[in-house]
Amino acid sequence: MPPSRAAMAPALPSRTYTLPAPLQLDGGQVLEGASIAFETYGELAADKGNAILICHALTGDQYVASDHPVTGKPGWWERTVGPGKPIDTDRFHVICANVIGGCMGSTGPASIAGDGQPYAMRFPVITIRDMVRAQVALLDGLGIERLHAVVGGSMGGMQALSLAANFPGRCDRVLAIATTARHSAQNIAFHEVGRQAVMADPDWQGGNYYGSGRAPDKGLSVARMAAHITYLSESGLTEKFGRNLQDRDAKTFGFDADFQVESYLRYQGSGFTQRFDANSYLYITRAMDYFDLAEEHGGKLAEAFAASTARFCLVSFDSDWLYPTAESRHIVHALNAAGAAVSFVELSAPHGHDSFLLDVSALDRVMKGFVG
Amino acid sequence: MPPSRAAMAPALPSRTYTLPAPLQLDGGQVLEGASIAFETYGELAADKGNAILICHALTGDQYVASDHPVTGKPGWWERTVGPGKPIDTDRFHVICANVIGGCMGSTGPASIAGDGQPYAMRFPVITIRDMVRAQVALLDGLGIERLHAVVGGSMGGMQALSLAANFPGRCDRVLAIATTARHSAQNIAFHEVGRQAVMADPDWQGGNYYGSGRAPDKGLSVARMAAHITYLSESGLTEKFGRNLQDRDAKTFGFDADFQVESYLRYQGSGFTQRFDANSYLYITRAMDYFDLAEEHGGKLAEAFAASTARFCLVSFDSDWLYPTAESRHIVHALNAAGAAVSFVELSAPHGHDSFLLDVSALDRVMKGFVG
Repeated sequence: MPPSRAAMAPALPSRTYTLPAPLQLDGGQVLEGASIAFETYGELAADKGNAILICHALTGDQYVASDHPVTGKPGWWERTVGPGKPIDTDRFHVICANVIGGCMGSTGPASIAGDGQPYAMRFPVITIRDMVRAQVALLDGLGIERLHAVVGGSMGGMQALSLAANFPGRCDRVLAIATTARHSAQNIAFHEVGRQAVMADPDWQGGNYYGSGRAPDKGLSVARMAAHITYLSESGLTEKFGRNLQDRDAKTFGFDADFQVESYLRYQGSGFTQRFDANSYLYITRAMDYFDLAEEHGGKLAEAFAASTARFCLVSFDSDWLYPTAESRHIVHALNAAGAAVSFVELSAPHGHDSFLLDVSALDRVMKGFVG
Repeated sequence: MPPSRAAMAPALPSRTYTLPAPLQLDGGQVLEGASIAFETYGELAADKGNAILICHALTGDQYVASDHPVTGKPGWWERTVGPGKPIDTDRFHVICANVIGGCMGSTGPASIAGDGQPYAMRFPVITIRDMVRAQVALLDGLGIERLHAVVGGSMGGMQALSLAANFPGRCDRVLAIATTARHSAQNIAFHEVGRQAVMADPDWQGGNYYGSGRAPDKGLSVARMAAHITYLSESGLTEKFGRNLQDRDAKTFGFDADFQVESYLRYQGSGFTQRFDANSYLYITRAMDYFDLAEEHGGKLAEAFAASTARFCLVSFDSDWLYPTAESRHIVHALNAAGAAVSFVELSAPHGHDSFLLDVSALDRVMKGFVG
């Protein structure tokens, strides 16, 4: 097995911005001297009016359209972002920042605290709104007052909605894909399984595994396997794997990965540990579980959007059972009640929640049409 | 935390039958001297024509209508089985046996092998058909040639179908509830997560944890948590827990079980380890993943039922996403093709797969009507 992410040198982000002011967090704590690692693509116009902020999902990062420095793989939305692509970097200046709490250069649990030791579990619990506060501080630093658009899928969509709600003057367009305005009991339940899997691993060591030569790779791998199932549809799994056996003609009557789907999941799990920090996984899943945009705004989702002047576009996928269409519809109803301009489309795609990352030409057309 | 199941003395089943002949297994191995622990309820008629075999699910046992000797809780189907109940023990003689591979008295991985040591992972990998072979051997021992009915939900339904297919002369009625004729890729995937969680626990020790004072309770707990989510519907979880907090007025901004659903899952996980053996969990999930009734019969499910003269009743629940209605319909089509007498009903119940264990009065009526 290759070395785990936690055992490797930190990835070097291309650019880092250190927040000039302490970041006030929802939990009441303050993050001093936080850094934001980010990538940009395309030229910023002289009037700074062509900036698009892309917000990444739980296990994403700032490498939206350039090779990942750890895995060497193409950017996670390379099919969407680039010259002539649906988000056209010949026309737009695309910014993508690693969320705080992350592990790709932004301040997170693996970062060094004031006492010279890694934060580990002393890192404050953050929220989606805290992530957005950091993104807005970065925009301030870049001198970008108003975004042409904020775009995100899954947790990225949560951030896009949160930015529109909490910083209503900062964006003209909000494109939120395969997302939700709150985590359901089932969403929380799956994340809790993942956290317990990490914390049950003795190599987690209460979070203090940095520099120990051991990291909770097994626990994190199990967490990723469980989560990965929720990203795919039942029919997609059946189509892709069915009950096909892996490189063998017959069942072995043992506990090897007889079935292709077992082999695939194990690969997903172990590959993940090579690029992600387990404590970041704990903190980011917690932020998602805490997300309830209505609760932040007096319990009424429409109130969250009362001050927004942006145009909204919501996209869901019919095979997404993690954040099903009903969740997008719920947001659309609130936007309608708030009198916002909103368009909404449910796309037919076979691959479940992950469809937002995959080859869905209808999504390309929607994005191109909305972002302009 | 109370002691785990593995650390406790074996539960004493009320009756045990030792198979007089070696049990030939699908995997090619032979199980010598296997014991079957079972419970019975109601009187067996003089002509032995009133016997009903109930087959239990993955984590069930023979205590269908009497207190569980480890937990002290009522039997798992006490609402269904008893005097005057849908399966009326004033009229029927009900037999329920712990499956082989189990941990409640039937021979399984915790049992002592010929060399005086526990089998652990030397126990042969078994199949649903192997479980049924053991059940039929028990019926032979009890002198019951033909069952009035075989009844089961979930994995119990798999056994009921397998008995009808492989021992077509042994039953008059087959009632299969919330079940499937084969495990899907998604079903296998969830089980694989659970197995990996168990095997990732260093206390698993390659399965040789018996007598070591340590058992993979943490891993087994995570496995149970993941599985438990699949037993409940998304809407059922929302209705029962939503985003309610557990014994607190506000989020703690920490990693405690802030949400009720987290607390509930942790309780389900740790409670499970007190009554179940981790290696049994591995073997029984493997048997379920291997289950493909069509494959056993030339790839055609209708062929499986060609020789059966039984009447069938299939029941599914509209909120069951583990074995959804389409799986029951698939079985019904095969039974129709085989010319079997079959009735089928999809019941509306909010609680997902676990509905077969819960208070669903329509299920009571279906069972009473079909069993007679």
